Amino acid sequence: MSQQFSLAIHGGAGTITRNLLTPAKEAAYLSGLSHAISAGKSILSAGGSALDAVETAVIALENNPLFNAGKGAVFNHQGGHEMDASIMDGSNLMAGAVTCVQSLKNPVQAARWVMERSEHVLLSGAGAEKFAMEHGAVAESNDYFYDQFRFEQWQEAVASNSIQLDHSEKKFGTVGAVAMDSAGNLAAATSTGGMTNKKWGRIGDTPVIGSGTYANNHTCAISCTGHGEFFLRAVVAYDISCLMEYKGLTLKQACDLVVMEKLVKMGGEGGLIAVDHQGHIELPFNSEGMYRGWANNSNEEVLIYK
Amino acid sequence: MSQQFSLAIHGGAGTITRNLLTPAKEAAYLSGLSHAISAGKSILSAGGSALDAVETAVIALENNPLFNAGKGAVFNHQGGHEMDASIMDGSNLMAGAVTCVQSLKNPVQAARWVMERSEHVLLSGAGAEKFAMEHGAVAESNDYFYDQFRFEQWQEAVASNSIQLDHSEKKFGTVGAVAMDSAGNLAAATSTGGMTNKKWGRIGDTPVIGSGTYANNHTCAISCTGHGEFFLRAVVAYDISCLMEYKGLTLKQACDLVVMEKLVKMGGEGGLIAVDHQGHIELPFNSEGMYRGWANNSNEEVLIYK
Repeated sequence: MSQQFSLAIHGGAGTITRNLLTPAKEAAYLSGLSHAISAGKSILSAGGSALDAVETAVIALENNPLFNAGKGAVFNHQGGHEMDASIMDGSNLMAGAVTCVQSLKNPVQAARWVMERSEHVLLSGAGAEKFAMEHGAVAESNDYFYDQFRFEQWQEAVASNSIQLDHSEKKFGTVGAVAMDSAGNLAAATSTGGMTNKKWGRIGDTPVIGSGTYANNHTCAISCTGHGEFFLRAVVAYDISCLMEYKGLTLKQACDLVVMEKLVKMGGEGGLIAVDHQGHIELPFNSEGMYRGWANNSNEEVLIYK
Repeated sequence: MSQQFSLAIHGGAGTITRNLLTPAKEAAYLSGLSHAISAGKSILSAGGSALDAVETAVIALENNPLFNAGKGAVFNHQGGHEMDASIMDGSNLMAGAVTCVQSLKNPVQAARWVMERSEHVLLSGAGAEKFAMEHGAVAESNDYFYDQFRFEQWQEAVASNSIQLDHSEKKFGTVGAVAMDSAGNLAAATSTGGMTNKKWGRIGDTPVIGSGTYANNHTCAISCTGHGEFFLRAVVAYDISCLMEYKGLTLKQACDLVVMEKLVKMGGEGGLIAVDHQGHIELPFNSEGMYRGWANNSNEEVLIYK
C-alpha cells in the first residue's frame, strides 16, 4: 500500500465520435495520451511527488500540437494565442495560476512558479510573462504556436464571426492531470488555449482555483475540461470536494452528481478527471467523448469514446 | 413577510483601529457607508431586485474616493490602476466579472453587462474595456482616479520596494454588497482596486466567482474582502454556501467556521458580508475592523470597529 499511486489525465472533452477521427488521427491521440501517462507514471513509480507528476504530464500534453494547450493552442480573435494554466498542491492547499499569457512554451510551469516563488495565486497577461521570464521560462515566437489546422479553424470562425468553443470543434482541447503519490499527497494541474476566435480577453475556468482545478489531501484532486462558463458558475472542482467532505459522498457519487446531473441541468458540456485520497480514479464526462487516460501501480489505459 | 428585505455592504477589512482614524475621517467613512446603504435600500424598499440593489450600493462605494475601488483605487507598480469586479444573481446562478480594467468608472456595471450581455463570465484587460465601451460604459482618465493619499501610499511602497496589501494599509479597500429582495432573490457584488504597487498583473479573489463573490437563492449571498490569495485558495464564498447546503450549518455557523477558524488557521486576514435565503445577515471578520453596514425593513446600522 505504501507504494500505491494513481494518475489520470485528460486532453479535452467534446463531440468526439469515431466517424470524426481517422484511424491515423485516433492512433496519434492515443499515442499522445500514452506518452503523457508514461511521463507522469515514471515519476510516481520512482516515489516522486504528485505535484511533479501532474506538472510533467501536463507539459507533455502542452508540447503536443494535437491538444489545445501550449503548442497547439487555438487562435484568438486577434490571430494570437492566449493561454491559461493552474496547479494546486493538495498537501498544503497552495496554488498558482497564469492567465492570458501569449508566448510561454509551458504555461503550467509558470503556474507552478507563481505558487512556489511568489506571494500570489493568479498572475495575468504581460505581467505574468515578465514574472515567468525572470524565473527562467522559455518563450516561443508565434511560429512555434502556429498549427495549420488551428489556423484554418480560426479563419473559419472569423468568416462566420463566431466564437468557437473548444469543446464544440472538430479538434478539442484543454489538458489536465491529477495524481496521488505514494506518500498520499494529491495534486492537480490544468492548461488550455481557450476558445477559437475568442475576444475581449475572455477567461474560462482553467486558471480558476475551485472551478477548473482543485486539490486537497483530505478529499480529492480535480481537473476540468469543457464549456468553461458553466464550470465557473458551478464552481465545479471545489463542489466535488465539498460533496465528499461535507456530505460524505464517495468520489464516484460526487462526480456523477456534478457532471451528469448538475452540469447537464445547467447546459454545461464537458467532463473532468478525479482522484481521491484513497487513490480511486473517476473520469466522468457528459459529452460524446473525452481524451483521457489513467494509470496506477498495476494498470494503465487510454481512451477517447464513451 | 412578503415585503422583507435584507442588505449588507462592506468597504474593506484590515487593521482599522480607533487611533488610526481622526474623528473627521471616521465620520466621513460612516457617511460613505450610510450613503451606499441608502442607495441600495431605496431600491429594495420599493420592491426592486437584489441585483439592482447590490449594483447600486457598490457603485456608490466605487464613486467614493475613500474606498479602494473605482475612484480611489490604489496605484499599481506602473503608476496606473487595475480594477476588478464581479456580480452574481442567486436566482439563476448567472455571473459576470471583469479583471485588470484600467479606465472604467464603474467596474461593477461592466461585470453586470458581462453577465447579461455576453456568453461569458470573466473578461480581462483591454478586451474587457472594449466590451464595456461597446455597451456604453463611462471611461475616465487617470485624473479621475488620482487621489493624493493613494499617490503617496504608492510612492512609499515604491521607495521600500514593497507590495502593500490593501488590508494592511492605513487606508483600506475593496467594497461589496449582498442582498435579499422582497421576492426572496439573492445577489452579491464585489469591486476592488487591488494591492498598492502590485506587479505582474496580479489578480485577487474579487473577480473570481466562488472565492470573492457567490450567490445562490437556496443558500446565501457572499462578498469577501481581505488578503485575496487566501480567499482564492480557500474558495471562501462557495465554501460557506456548501457548508449550509451539504452540512446543514446555519449562515452564522458557516461564517464562523470559515472566517474565524479556517482562514485564521491559514493566516488569511479579512472578512465578508453574508445574507441567507431567510434574510439573516452576518458580517464576520478576523481583522481589527471592517467598514460595514446593514439594513432591513426596520433597522439600519453602519460600523467600523469590532
